[in-house]
Amino acid sequence: MSPETRDRITQIADELSYVVSPEASRLAGGATRRVAVVVPAISRWFYATMLAGIEGVLREADMDVLIYHVEGASDRARFFDRLPARRKVDAVILIALPVADAQIRRLELMGVTVVVAGGKIADYPSVQIDDEEAARQAVSHLLAIGHRRIALIMTTDSEDQVWVSDLSRRRGYSDALQHAGIPRAPELMVTVPWGLDGGARGMDRLLSLPSPPTAVFAHSDEVAMGALRTLRRASIAVPDRMSIVGVDDHPMAELNDLTTVHQSVEAQGAKAAQLVLDLLSARTPRQLHITVPTHLVVRGSTSAPAMALPGQADRR
Amino acid sequence: MSPETRDRITQIADELSYVVSPEASRLAGGATRRVAVVVPAISRWFYATMLAGIEGVLREADMDVLIYHVEGASDRARFFDRLPARRKVDAVILIALPVADAQIRRLELMGVTVVVAGGKIADYPSVQIDDEEAARQAVSHLLAIGHRRIALIMTTDSEDQVWVSDLSRRRGYSDALQHAGIPRAPELMVTVPWGLDGGARGMDRLLSLPSPPTAVFAHSDEVAMGALRTLRRASIAVPDRMSIVGVDDHPMAELNDLTTVHQSVEAQGAKAAQLVLDLLSARTPRQLHITVPTHLVVRGSTSAPAMALPGQADRR
Repeated sequence: MSPETRDRITQIADELSYVVSPEASRLAGGATRRVAVVVPAISRWFYATMLAGIEGVLREADMDVLIYHVEGASDRARFFDRLPARRKVDAVILIALPVADAQIRRLELMGVTVVVAGGKIADYPSVQIDDEEAARQAVSHLLAIGHRRIALIMTTDSEDQVWVSDLSRRRGYSDALQHAGIPRAPELMVTVPWGLDGGARGMDRLLSLPSPPTAVFAHSDEVAMGALRTLRRASIAVPDRMSIVGVDDHPMAELNDLTTVHQSVEAQGAKAAQLVLDLLSARTPRQLHITVPTHLVVRGSTSAPAMALPGQADRR
Repeated sequence: MSPETRDRITQIADELSYVVSPEASRLAGGATRRVAVVVPAISRWFYATMLAGIEGVLREADMDVLIYHVEGASDRARFFDRLPARRKVDAVILIALPVADAQIRRLELMGVTVVVAGGKIADYPSVQIDDEEAARQAVSHLLAIGHRRIALIMTTDSEDQVWVSDLSRRRGYSDALQHAGIPRAPELMVTVPWGLDGGARGMDRLLSLPSPPTAVFAHSDEVAMGALRTLRRASIAVPDRMSIVGVDDHPMAELNDLTTVHQSVEAQGAKAAQLVLDLLSARTPRQLHITVPTHLVVRGSTSAPAMALPGQADRR
């Protein structure tokens, strides 16, 4: 094609409202410079903080962040049905949400880069904590200070589903107890809807047992703080009569003097975003599956059980 | 142009990776179906909840939400410098952040729809609470139960700026005191960086006064909860020795038994998004400036001052 013909076509195309578009470059192997972040609950601390970590890194790289709030299974189905047809992002970051096999096939169809933040889905590159280890850190602390009767409050989502992270934390809890030679006590494992109210109800149920626990490991700090609310209302002294430990190190954990297992959520988001940038620029990331370490933060919500006498744990 | 010529041009344009793009339609008066949400702090409850409200309404309308985290003045300048050149959104929602006049001119240049959520900027359509009224509701409650020595903890952002909402709340505080015939006491008005730590420091300063207050009105619940932390550490009983009231009705306010002025943040976000949809579809919104009502929620952090005897307030 001669330069004159090309100029003429460009001119006419302009008149027809055609332009070189990011979408076009994308179809031709280029980039939209947009990343979709799929999140099950925007306003919760964990997801909002993860999003902040992701956005910070992508913004520095001059990428735009599109957010998709997909709360339940039907939202998720709708999201995955629509996205492939649009091809309007270079990558998708899934923040810790359950994805069905059919939806994974949808993602494959899109041919975009997929990274998981705060969890693991299929074989996608991922950044997360070791949920089993986090639970072991919490329960080992309770064991070390003398507790034997340790309850678990685990959670479901708005559709009564228990998520993988909860199942992993339950495994860590069970392993730690088994390792200490403590027999299974199914009545000490309660499942409630996620949140403050759920945590409060979980504690209600544990207190109504003929033989309540002396300590509770709660799935997350917000659940643990709900349990604290029940204990305050029941005038049960923490930690004298009941010890509580959560997971997260939520900004409110210190205020409520809550012992917890710290995780850096913003760092997980930032690392997930960096994985996306590496993969899009065809750099080989040093690791495709990154585990961010957790550690125990001891505050005032845990102490030795009230009835424990020196050596008591040994005598059992 | 003959149909044959048009077809030929379309074909060649396709080969050149030209397509009809949303950007092109946008330039020709069409829509990108994207809305930019500009937010100063993604991970804080207020902004994350506002974002959730906005996203919910826009998603139902099949619009995409782009988030831009602009924390300080230089972020903001960068955002406003870059956005106009791109023209990649139909509308911009600004969540309660300070915008300079030059930046407003930039927005005008873009010719996009602009809506403000949780505040007011220039004459843009907006959804917010009445900050003066919220402060009056808090302070009137403290006056009604007998307090005369009422402090204010107001806040600055990460760059030491006091925002308009704080200035409005200070005005509401001052008006309520003046209306009750209480003289100004500048030592009772402290300014701290926003957040739990700021609130704790504000309370430190108030406690170090020769004559501390008997009650505190804090700019927001997170600041009030920081003040509660100081009081717990100092073993000053709440509400017996000190009453505290905040603004927000944050999810943790009930847990910490905090009296507060409730605002519905998600509703403000949803209404702002609806304003955007109305304006984009050339429907005339019933109101361009929407005020969402606030109301007092009395919990356990406020009571009559310890020293107040019946009729004492009257005798002064």
